[in-house]
Amino acid sequence: MKTSETCKTGGSETGGLPAEERVKRGNDKRIFVNRSLTLENIKCYGFDMDYTLAIYKSPEFETMGFELIRDRLVSVGYPHELLRYTYDPSFPTRGLVIDTLFGNLLKVDSNGNILVCSHGFYFLKSYDIKKFYPNKFIQRHDTDRFHNLSTLFNLSETYLYACLMDFFTRCSRYENLTTGFQHGDLLMTFRSMFQDVRDAMDHIHNNGVLKDRTIKNLEKFVEKIPNLPYFLTRIKDVAKVFLATNSDYMYTEAIMRYLLETCVTTSGPRKPWRSYFDLIVVDTKKPQFFGEGTVLRQVDTDTGKLRIGTYTGDLQHGTVYSGGSSDVICDLLKVQGKDILYVGDHIFGDILKSKKRQGWKTFLVVPELTKELEVWEKKRGLFEELKRLDVFLAELHKNVDSTDPEILDIQYRMKVLTYRMDVAYSQMGSLLRSGSRQTLFSSQLLRYADLYSTSCINLVHYPLNYLFLAPPVLMAHEMTSSDNTTDMEAVI
Amino acid sequence: MKTSETCKTGGSETGGLPAEERVKRGNDKRIFVNRSLTLENIKCYGFDMDYTLAIYKSPEFETMGFELIRDRLVSVGYPHELLRYTYDPSFPTRGLVIDTLFGNLLKVDSNGNILVCSHGFYFLKSYDIKKFYPNKFIQRHDTDRFHNLSTLFNLSETYLYACLMDFFTRCSRYENLTTGFQHGDLLMTFRSMFQDVRDAMDHIHNNGVLKDRTIKNLEKFVEKIPNLPYFLTRIKDVAKVFLATNSDYMYTEAIMRYLLETCVTTSGPRKPWRSYFDLIVVDTKKPQFFGEGTVLRQVDTDTGKLRIGTYTGDLQHGTVYSGGSSDVICDLLKVQGKDILYVGDHIFGDILKSKKRQGWKTFLVVPELTKELEVWEKKRGLFEELKRLDVFLAELHKNVDSTDPEILDIQYRMKVLTYRMDVAYSQMGSLLRSGSRQTLFSSQLLRYADLYSTSCINLVHYPLNYLFLAPPVLMAHEMTSSDNTTDMEAVI
Amino acid sequence: MKTSETCKTGGSETGGLPAEERVKRGNDKRIFVNRSLTLENIKCYGFDMDYTLAIYKSPEFETMGFELIRDRLVSVGYPHELLRYTYDPSFPTRGLVIDTLFGNLLKVDSNGNILVCSHGFYFLKSYDIKKFYPNKFIQRHDTDRFHNLSTLFNLSETYLYACLMDFFTRCSRYENLTTGFQHGDLLMTFRSMFQDVRDAMDHIHNNGVLKDRTIKNLEKFVEKIPNLPYFLTRIKDVAKVFLATNSDYMYTEAIMRYLLETCVTTSGPRKPWRSYFDLIVVDTKKPQFFGEGTVLRQVDTDTGKLRIGTYTGDLQHGTVYSGGSSDVICDLLKVQGKDILYVGDHIFGDILKSKKRQGWKTFLVVPELTKELEVWEKKRGLFEELKRLDVFLAELHKNVDSTDPEILDIQYRMKVLTYRMDVAYSQMGSLLRSGSRQTLFSSQLLRYADLYSTSCINLVHYPLNYLFLAPPVLMAHEMTSSDNTTDMEAVI
Amino acid sequence: MKTSETCKTGGSETGGLPAEERVKRGNDKRIFVNRSLTLENIKCYGFDMDYTLAIYKSPEFETMGFELIRDRLVSVGYPHELLRYTYDPSFPTRGLVIDTLFGNLLKVDSNGNILVCSHGFYFLKSYDIKKFYPNKFIQRHDTDRFHNLSTLFNLSETYLYACLMDFFTRCSRYENLTTGFQHGDLLMTFRSMFQDVRDAMDHIHNNGVLKDRTIKNLEKFVEKIPNLPYFLTRIKDVAKVFLATNSDYMYTEAIMRYLLETCVTTSGPRKPWRSYFDLIVVDTKKPQFFGEGTVLRQVDTDTGKLRIGTYTGDLQHGTVYSGGSSDVICDLLKVQGKDILYVGDHIFGDILKSKKRQGWKTFLVVPELTKELEVWEKKRGLFEELKRLDVFLAELHKNVDSTDPEILDIQYRMKVLTYRMDVAYSQMGSLLRSGSRQTLFSSQLLRYADLYSTSCINLVHYPLNYLFLAPPVLMAHEMTSSDNTTDMEAVI
Repeated sequence: MKTSETCKTGGSETGGLPAEERVKRGNDKRIFVNRSLTLENIKCYGFDMDYTLAIYKSPEFETMGFELIRDRLVSVGYPHELLRYTYDPSFPTRGLVIDTLFGNLLKVDSNGNILVCSHGFYFLKSYDIKKFYPNKFIQRHDTDRFHNLSTLFNLSETYLYACLMDFFTRCSRYENLTTGFQHGDLLMTFRSMFQDVRDAMDHIHNNGVLKDRTIKNLEKFVEKIPNLPYFLTRIKDVAKVFLATNSDYMYTEAIMRYLLETCVTTSGPRKPWRSYFDLIVVDTKKPQFFGEGTVLRQVDTDTGKLRIGTYTGDLQHGTVYSGGSSDVICDLLKVQGKDILYVGDHIFGDILKSKKRQGWKTFLVVPELTKELEVWEKKRGLFEELKRLDVFLAELHKNVDSTDPEILDIQYRMKVLTYRMDVAYSQMGSLLRSGSRQTLFSSQLLRYADLYSTSCINLVHYPLNYLFLAPPVLMAHEMTSSDNTTDMEAVI
Repeated sequence: MKTSETCKTGGSETGGLPAEERVKRGNDKRIFVNRSLTLENIKCYGFDMDYTLAIYKSPEFETMGFELIRDRLVSVGYPHELLRYTYDPSFPTRGLVIDTLFGNLLKVDSNGNILVCSHGFYFLKSYDIKKFYPNKFIQRHDTDRFHNLSTLFNLSETYLYACLMDFFTRCSRYENLTTGFQHGDLLMTFRSMFQDVRDAMDHIHNNGVLKDRTIKNLEKFVEKIPNLPYFLTRIKDVAKVFLATNSDYMYTEAIMRYLLETCVTTSGPRKPWRSYFDLIVVDTKKPQFFGEGTVLRQVDTDTGKLRIGTYTGDLQHGTVYSGGSSDVICDLLKVQGKDILYVGDHIFGDILKSKKRQGWKTFLVVPELTKELEVWEKKRGLFEELKRLDVFLAELHKNVDSTDPEILDIQYRMKVLTYRMDVAYSQMGSLLRSGSRQTLFSSQLLRYADLYSTSCINLVHYPLNYLFLAPPVLMAHEMTSSDNTTDMEAVI
Repeated sequence: MKTSETCKTGGSETGGLPAEERVKRGNDKRIFVNRSLTLENIKCYGFDMDYTLAIYKSPEFETMGFELIRDRLVSVGYPHELLRYTYDPSFPTRGLVIDTLFGNLLKVDSNGNILVCSHGFYFLKSYDIKKFYPNKFIQRHDTDRFHNLSTLFNLSETYLYACLMDFFTRCSRYENLTTGFQHGDLLMTFRSMFQDVRDAMDHIHNNGVLKDRTIKNLEKFVEKIPNLPYFLTRIKDVAKVFLATNSDYMYTEAIMRYLLETCVTTSGPRKPWRSYFDLIVVDTKKPQFFGEGTVLRQVDTDTGKLRIGTYTGDLQHGTVYSGGSSDVICDLLKVQGKDILYVGDHIFGDILKSKKRQGWKTFLVVPELTKELEVWEKKRGLFEELKRLDVFLAELHKNVDSTDPEILDIQYRMKVLTYRMDVAYSQMGSLLRSGSRQTLFSSQLLRYADLYSTSCINLVHYPLNYLFLAPPVLMAHEMTSSDNTTDMEAVI
Repeated sequence: MKTSETCKTGGSETGGLPAEERVKRGNDKRIFVNRSLTLENIKCYGFDMDYTLAIYKSPEFETMGFELIRDRLVSVGYPHELLRYTYDPSFPTRGLVIDTLFGNLLKVDSNGNILVCSHGFYFLKSYDIKKFYPNKFIQRHDTDRFHNLSTLFNLSETYLYACLMDFFTRCSRYENLTTGFQHGDLLMTFRSMFQDVRDAMDHIHNNGVLKDRTIKNLEKFVEKIPNLPYFLTRIKDVAKVFLATNSDYMYTEAIMRYLLETCVTTSGPRKPWRSYFDLIVVDTKKPQFFGEGTVLRQVDTDTGKLRIGTYTGDLQHGTVYSGGSSDVICDLLKVQGKDILYVGDHIFGDILKSKKRQGWKTFLVVPELTKELEVWEKKRGLFEELKRLDVFLAELHKNVDSTDPEILDIQYRMKVLTYRMDVAYSQMGSLLRSGSRQTLFSSQLLRYADLYSTSCINLVHYPLNYLFLAPPVLMAHEMTSSDNTTDMEAVI
């Protein structure tokens, strides 16, 4: 009897975990809280599929994606030498911004200040960054020029763009210009190269090759969460459950069947995957789904095709729909926005939009959190040292000015510490911070995700009437007002 | 003969304050920090005028504004009974949102969740709120329906709108409808009443009556910051200084002369007000000023009129300009965005826009902070009690469900505590919080203002190479990761 | 008994005109037809006021407008020498396009091809035009750059803009640049000068000076149509009648009282002007009025102020409304769009919009038509000669190529003929054509106006069941198909 | 062995046609003129490919298109009964407007007045039309609701939409609603059915099946213009020639090779098709091509793939490009907009846009013109009768009112005549008129096409220095002014 294939079907007590596991449970099993939330009030759980219920194995999945778009570029005319590049998971970080004018990858904070900047695999020094961005700042709203790479699907693309910059910069056949490369009569702007990568991405998504390969080798690419059937059964006992995915029906069917019907269960017969949900919606076109939406149609689950016309009847169990909108879901399930906890991995399409436009409760899945927690644990000393130096620097400033050698020395040491901390995560650093500064991704996570965790399955470790309690947020003046001894700002 | 009229012209030591004042200095003299900032790096200080350099006396100024728009409404046909209403500073709070569909004043958090809701002077209970807003949530981006009242100039308008609701609701001549009042053939929608108030506001601003009355009685309406000349002189020694106001030149001239030329100075002769600035820009049309801007023209300071054509020469000292944009200012002063500390009172027009679009450093003046600090000091006990009950509630949830009488009792006590805390600020509560939850205004302050304080003059208490140090922000998973004992989320 | 003051109160027979007048009636008493229309089907007549019922005397009115904006420019800093310019009615033509980039006045056809181009009072030769517009074509949809001057109110502005170009081009203090004038540090772009003129226009409209002067001297500025009371009474007998003007109530009251209450009538007592209409709407904000419109409010005719709230009752006779929309009018009068004949002078705001968005029948008042008809009558010979030369040229082309001296000679003669025809109208030529080519204005008139005439009063000459018959339009292939002898295209 | 496959390679004299043909040449060989144009001034000829150089055989091509989208609909779930419908060329007319709200096909004039209205194959009477459109008028700018079917590619779609209405209206399983059909829980709105047809259209275009079948059976679907090689050679001698098509390269290659390389020529060897053009641009994305355009890339003519990067060198003969814009074409060919005569079949994408945005000279190919001319010739009597009745009606109106039986009788006779004329063209009537009123298509043709003809090849019948002379357009007041005898409007 294969154990890793055994589906957990529940323990006797509420928590669902034997006592000895309680101690072992590490931080990657925990759920973190930005805004308090009582599970007992949740009348409806919604799930995205990709990277939420279906965890794609890393780096196998990104590697496949990278190779497909790399090969596509070569097939449309890019040099064969590109085939020598292979995916390196230690380079890219999610949440970067691409500057299509100068071909740089940027890590920025929520206000558009640049934290890290690379061109290909070369990391620009502060001095060089200022040549491109005199204010070390970008106008993020210029979406014509700057593109966010905020999903896990963007990782292969991020890396490939760096490969292209690397290759053409080094290749002697091409002349380096400010906004691209020249080869004889041919001008390749960074912008057109970005467009080519985007087109290649679209190509492999639209022609189905990425999905086909995934489905043909599910064991290789999709992680099977052992106790997922138990987890879904457990929450379906107390609340409504829906699946809302941008994927099409055939792919959803293949993935969900693999996740929910192919494991051995210790109790009772296997159930069809659709029976785990009150409502299944495919082709959701998020984020549009959280606004005006599209027409809701029924899916013929035998053929995978859409039924013609729009379904106007009551919700029928096991029925699969295509399209629709978040409003339609609330109507069909008879729930209000704030009764819903929506679990997804896409900070913009899943979390920001459902929160901002519909007032849903949100749970962000952040697979990178396992590594983030691990590094934070190990390198926290560097962060504490940074904090100490910061305070020391503030003290120094009371007496000397910034040209003082001691100040310059501390600033240098802080840069080194920041760099050492960053590379402990990956070459482009942490998803969430650069030294003591937080990334755009991190500030969006804070604003829009009520809860976050490495995996949605971690909900299984909490009783379903649990109150997730956020520590109260104090503003600067509230923190310091009653507390004169640690008054950092007070000079005199 | 030192009176309140004497201008402070500087002390000998860096801090600018005699030793005995250091002890006395309370929190309302302090500057609070959201993001670290080294004054030494600031090469340029910019100031808004209204509510920044020119503090309008409260409630005298709001009272005048209220009466002018109230009288205007009566003069365009509103019932004379409205004249009985007088401005009550204890009611309105800045930063409310008006719902023009249902005529309610709303206090919301950054995601659009409703914290407080009033109709006229009647405060809706949670149950009533849900009748209007089933999800206790508004779609803030529907700016056609919802209007932010985020400036101090909006206070009189906020109060007047409540008065209108109050009057017509009680007046027996009018029938109460869901979206307005009916009187015979006449339908007054809440929307059209809002439009009438807006038009009245525009009227008193455009016909100059508000300005005229202010200028005719400056002593009554404008606070004279005693050491403003000293302060401006001091920063002009180390950096460039500009004034950027949406007001016109004649009004600016009157106000600034009053502030800078009519006080007795202990050292040296009075200087003309314009000599305190490297650049003076009026009619700035912020927030447009931080984007595409308008044509930059010179003002003839003798006549107050614009010169024709666009000035293309170098910056000339004492020259006054009209229009332009933040880019033009940077060019004229030869500074980069992040070299500028911009001090203003308008969270949207001054702070959010300068930060988000131009990467400027920002200092938000929050006059209400004096009171906020005072109440916080006195009522902090309530907040601590709220926190305790929150933790207690979380503990209870582990064992019992939410229908348990103990839980209901605690929830009731928390509501009472929140209410008691709120009314300690004003009837609509604090500018920054409602119980333990933060307002939209508060979250914008956190995101966009690097520094904030009761008054800009508080900069005088810090040496000009001061490093304002923000406490590092930890995310939920970083806080708990190394610290197992206070693990609030861990159940089992 | 003053004859010119005597109001026509009706004749006995249907046509309303004594027999002897029938003979004398010239073309300026006729109504011209673009699309057939049966008056008998018209259930509702709508009138604009300015330039439709109230004919402003030319050039007195334009002269006043010109002087007011000229003086305003000088008062905001433009050189005093400008005061020497006086309005010359022989220069401007309505319907020109201003190019704010190059400061030129353009006459264009419906596709944007340039017919005439002037810079100040200097007319550019074909060769010069191509320097600015290589394709002799403008992209009319670039409304940021090109502005239509299509109303009679624009005439003073048109002339003033030409004066400015003239003055600064000649004035030795200013250097001529491609896009403006330079004087020391001062750059005056053509665009900013256009903006200044626009601002001055807005100023004299908003501060009421233009209206005040008009009202104070109605005899000087407003033509009294002798039989207007008779005309309105006559159509009100058979249909509903409304007035829809963008003017405010006080101005409308003054003008309409002058037009309808101050003349001696031969039959019966004078009636109040409002009794001539079923519905009076002021502040209509056309063209917005024909789309989403604004809130409909009642006007208190004693005070001229708006009543608060929105009127929801039935239509009451003599009631004056403010705002609203064309849909609201149809509801109040219980008529459909195609039952309405709307009479106005503004090709865009009155005619194009009411036709295109609401399907109304339209009648364009074209005061210039008197002169256009007169010149056409006199100079028709030139046009016939142009036609002859055109045919001759086509013949020549069959045998020789375009470098042939005979062809060049004919082309030169055609240019001369076109010029002679143009200047017979005014310096900028006819409102409707340049030689054999039609203007943008002319093509809009054709497309959107069902009827057009010198004055709306000409309706009085037609019985109210008249069928205005448009000659059928044949396309080129329909004209030639059955008619082989005059086949102009067939070469061989 | 001269067959229809023999390419005409030119005659000796200019006209290119032997003398005896001159006489025989009928109207379908003629080019009609809306605005005068001298061929000698044309320095550059541009051609669209589909329906311009490549004439698709009718009804074979539309039949194939119809069957493909019909089958697609059935394959996505529409009832199998639909397969019984076959394409009927006698029903649809190009240029109709679909009302997706009510499911009607509308024929409208340029102002949106309804001329003909059908629901399925049922033609609505005037009385019924008013139930849907009380004003017999549509707001054409509401493009969300109304869709133009203005290309020849839309014919199959037009017919299929009528078939769907017909089927579901008759089918007893479905209930007829105002905006769709209901079947149990399933609501099929007219809008969603329109969307399904559109999606099916996109499907057969995107998956290439339409192109594949065309290429596999070129003889069946594409007409070979006999003297096309001669024609292109002839104009290439005197001007530049380009091809600009929205089709991709592989399809263009197949079609153009068939048209230009597979015929037997009488003189000299066959030339490769690309040698007939100075510039070949595929994937043009018209109408976007006439505005901002897309990136210009080179096509590798061996593989059909795009070269990476953007071509920046000089124009090379025989090179094929993808994308670009009309501006880029002018640069590459060194011509101005008005030197270009652009020949296309798409009134909006080819003609309106090139004329309005770029000032090009335009030649609209209207294949239906052969039939239009034929019917016009035959049925002109009906039109003359209509005209006579119109005049008679106008006369009658002078004496009697519209309830007079004689008037009613004439109106009835005019309706019958209009109907008889319409059906002589097809069930939906003429492309260009309904009785004496012109269609939207007709008025766009008049405004934007300088020349029009049944086929572009008709240019071969005119010498290349020909002057196409348009008859001068007179306005109503110009026509009548000197011509008192036929004064139709003058009553008295």
